[in-house]
Amino acid sequence: MSYNRKDLLGMSDLSAEEITYLLDTAQTFCEINERDVKKVPTLKGRTVINVFFEPSTRTRTSFEIAGKRLSADTINFTASSSSTTKGETLIDTVKNMEAMHSDVFVVRHSYSGAVKLIAENTDTAVVNAGDGLNEHPTQALLDLLTIRQRKGKIKGLEIAIIGDITHSRVARSDIWAMNKLGANVRVYGPLTMLPKYIAPFNCRKCTSMEEALEGADVIIMLRIQHERQGKLLLPSTREYAKFFGLTNEKLEIADKDAIVMHPGPINRGVELMTNVADCNRAVVLDQVSNGVAVRMAALYLLGNRKGGKIENAS
Amino acid sequence: MSYNRKDLLGMSDLSAEEITYLLDTAQTFCEINERDVKKVPTLKGRTVINVFFEPSTRTRTSFEIAGKRLSADTINFTASSSSTTKGETLIDTVKNMEAMHSDVFVVRHSYSGAVKLIAENTDTAVVNAGDGLNEHPTQALLDLLTIRQRKGKIKGLEIAIIGDITHSRVARSDIWAMNKLGANVRVYGPLTMLPKYIAPFNCRKCTSMEEALEGADVIIMLRIQHERQGKLLLPSTREYAKFFGLTNEKLEIADKDAIVMHPGPINRGVELMTNVADCNRAVVLDQVSNGVAVRMAALYLLGNRKGGKIENAS
Amino acid sequence: MSYNRKDLLGMSDLSAEEITYLLDTAQTFCEINERDVKKVPTLKGRTVINVFFEPSTRTRTSFEIAGKRLSADTINFTASSSSTTKGETLIDTVKNMEAMHSDVFVVRHSYSGAVKLIAENTDTAVVNAGDGLNEHPTQALLDLLTIRQRKGKIKGLEIAIIGDITHSRVARSDIWAMNKLGANVRVYGPLTMLPKYIAPFNCRKCTSMEEALEGADVIIMLRIQHERQGKLLLPSTREYAKFFGLTNEKLEIADKDAIVMHPGPINRGVELMTNVADCNRAVVLDQVSNGVAVRMAALYLLGNRKGGKIENAS
Repeated sequence: MSYNRKDLLGMSDLSAEEITYLLDTAQTFCEINERDVKKVPTLKGRTVINVFFEPSTRTRTSFEIAGKRLSADTINFTASSSSTTKGETLIDTVKNMEAMHSDVFVVRHSYSGAVKLIAENTDTAVVNAGDGLNEHPTQALLDLLTIRQRKGKIKGLEIAIIGDITHSRVARSDIWAMNKLGANVRVYGPLTMLPKYIAPFNCRKCTSMEEALEGADVIIMLRIQHERQGKLLLPSTREYAKFFGLTNEKLEIADKDAIVMHPGPINRGVELMTNVADCNRAVVLDQVSNGVAVRMAALYLLGNRKGGKIENAS
Repeated sequence: MSYNRKDLLGMSDLSAEEITYLLDTAQTFCEINERDVKKVPTLKGRTVINVFFEPSTRTRTSFEIAGKRLSADTINFTASSSSTTKGETLIDTVKNMEAMHSDVFVVRHSYSGAVKLIAENTDTAVVNAGDGLNEHPTQALLDLLTIRQRKGKIKGLEIAIIGDITHSRVARSDIWAMNKLGANVRVYGPLTMLPKYIAPFNCRKCTSMEEALEGADVIIMLRIQHERQGKLLLPSTREYAKFFGLTNEKLEIADKDAIVMHPGPINRGVELMTNVADCNRAVVLDQVSNGVAVRMAALYLLGNRKGGKIENAS
Repeated sequence: MSYNRKDLLGMSDLSAEEITYLLDTAQTFCEINERDVKKVPTLKGRTVINVFFEPSTRTRTSFEIAGKRLSADTINFTASSSSTTKGETLIDTVKNMEAMHSDVFVVRHSYSGAVKLIAENTDTAVVNAGDGLNEHPTQALLDLLTIRQRKGKIKGLEIAIIGDITHSRVARSDIWAMNKLGANVRVYGPLTMLPKYIAPFNCRKCTSMEEALEGADVIIMLRIQHERQGKLLLPSTREYAKFFGLTNEKLEIADKDAIVMHPGPINRGVELMTNVADCNRAVVLDQVSNGVAVRMAALYLLGNRKGGKIENAS
């Protein structure tokens, strides 16, 4: 079992075996991150460029930490203030960075498909750090890793994803991956935020919070992606909290060992009540920790394609 | 003697012994900074995050250089463009970064007390890089280190702090620390920029520039913190220069070996006349050099709590 | 033969021998950049600060990669948001950074001559990364390196520079350097973008595209520097493309082995038609690769003045 692709673009491309291999690799980095000296020399002398065409602090920081812990030279390239504003094409910008002898690009872009377009036009390995409404594969991997750590498996679990499904690339990547690993997914949210046609996803649309929570092993709460939709059809914050927010009371409907997840940033009192966010069933911070491990795994597998194994810290 | 706290939040918390220990540690880093190879491996594999909720270039750069010279993985997190703008709480933002297995946070925030609040809510070590009008402890330490290098002692010195005292966290940290180390502090400035009640500080309010300078061993000049007050009560630049600026003539009033300090950035012709800023009694650039050493000391002591000693460059 | 200056400010200062030595040094770094492990330890423990008073992503990234591949601690200092906005003088800003024990400053500034002023006021080595309309020496070096790799020589070549000559510091540095190495330079562009008096440059002003291209071995196409001139006298994009853009047809006029260069970012369809930009005579991406090598050479020679030789990756 191994990962032999040039890029990590999305969960929809991958086989169950590839996803499992990524998770297994990430698990070894979880242990490295627990050390005092959280550093391995495997990507020393390699160049990782974070190419963010859409602003991000959290995801970029997670990738930057991951790159540095692998000893890579890690560069932030914020594209908004760059040459693309001087009339350069997207592909020329990327070809330029490839010509600087880069090993991995971590790319975020506000257009769905832009990261794939970039990957097809460069010999450099590309990790998708989120493209429009399409995919956010490292988020799906960190979700799966967190679930596997807590539940010991993915297969057969009942997973509820609740909130703004339509505008969430996290939901999309999650569902693809959970389908492949044999979990049963149900979704629920405001009508304006639930996709009308959900094929080719294999998931059940629920019509009430109760239906969504009933017997769930895992509950993934999503915030409203205000920045990706108009204001007209949005429910008020109070409405959203009342009908789609997770309270301790509603949590009782789920399986008694259900865990609560959220990709962050959390809006306390909106999608997650504070006592739920802080209870011991919430694994939100585990997700963040696993995020670094998953990104280390991705950079390690893509940035070091000529081989080499995970060595101890130098 | 040692420094056994998790954080470095302010001078008001510390004992004279702790302050002295920090200064002694910083002094060793001064010598390392004089080398060609200004690097020690003590924080290799540790993660230091500069979390700046208030913009800063100079202080952030000083901390970034300090972190890198200790071989830490040093990350800049500019919080203005981050998740806090998406409704996340301050503490959730910090908990997220803690979950990435960070070792030290260097935090600047425009609200007094915000850095303490953060420190109380994370297991990660926190260095206060300036919080509102409260404290800026590494600036006080670099001031003290500079004084000690030039005067051979702190105790018993006559120290004048002149300018915008009220809006200066530097003045506040300086006075706390100088009180503890036994210096005599006097302050002077425009009436609107002198705190009405200065207890619990032990310092003398002067009523004229002459009184403030008479017999002073150390003169610390401050700029007007325009960004922290309304425009209405401000003196004009010309007025300020005339009444509160330091000229060569006024400098004669002070002790003949008095040194002139300024936390920067200097407004030449306003608080410091150009010939004073450039004379050999001005130690402004020594302060900057010592700033890196002091920050190395702070990161070294907080980031490496399991022990380890300052080793030679690898 | 060696490079014994403190700074690299412009091509106009340098002798042919110095330029050749810089190119030879850069050539060795080209080979290092082809490796998997693109890293040498020569600047370990040295501090390189990118001081950009004018925004730049591409050039800054190239210098940042260069610094990191030499193992230097590489810091980005974006001056727009810094102390200069609080009334600090340019030289005080630079003296401050010098006091942090920096080894090299990479400086970009929108005023011609500002980088020289800085260099004269600091003991730290300074690399000019572009100053106003004056010089951009590392761009000239990467152009020369690319030409030398393709043509085997510089001397005696016919080099055409076409486009916005007046507002291009690249053109200025190129012409100085090409004059010194014995190439014959001709320029062509819109009348409003051709300097009236081109002495002391030794180059021929052409009056038609045909004249400029006739027998050329090297064609350097420039974009309009919109950001450095008013809008009134600008030709429309369509006009510019028609009269000053390079098509396959016009390329036939040049020598049959002529190469096409561009400092980037390219405006496809304006100064370079897409089929020209993508043909195998275009060496634009070689220029970008050589840019990193040239910057490694500059940082290596200036940052390591006490000696030391290029060693293998550690």
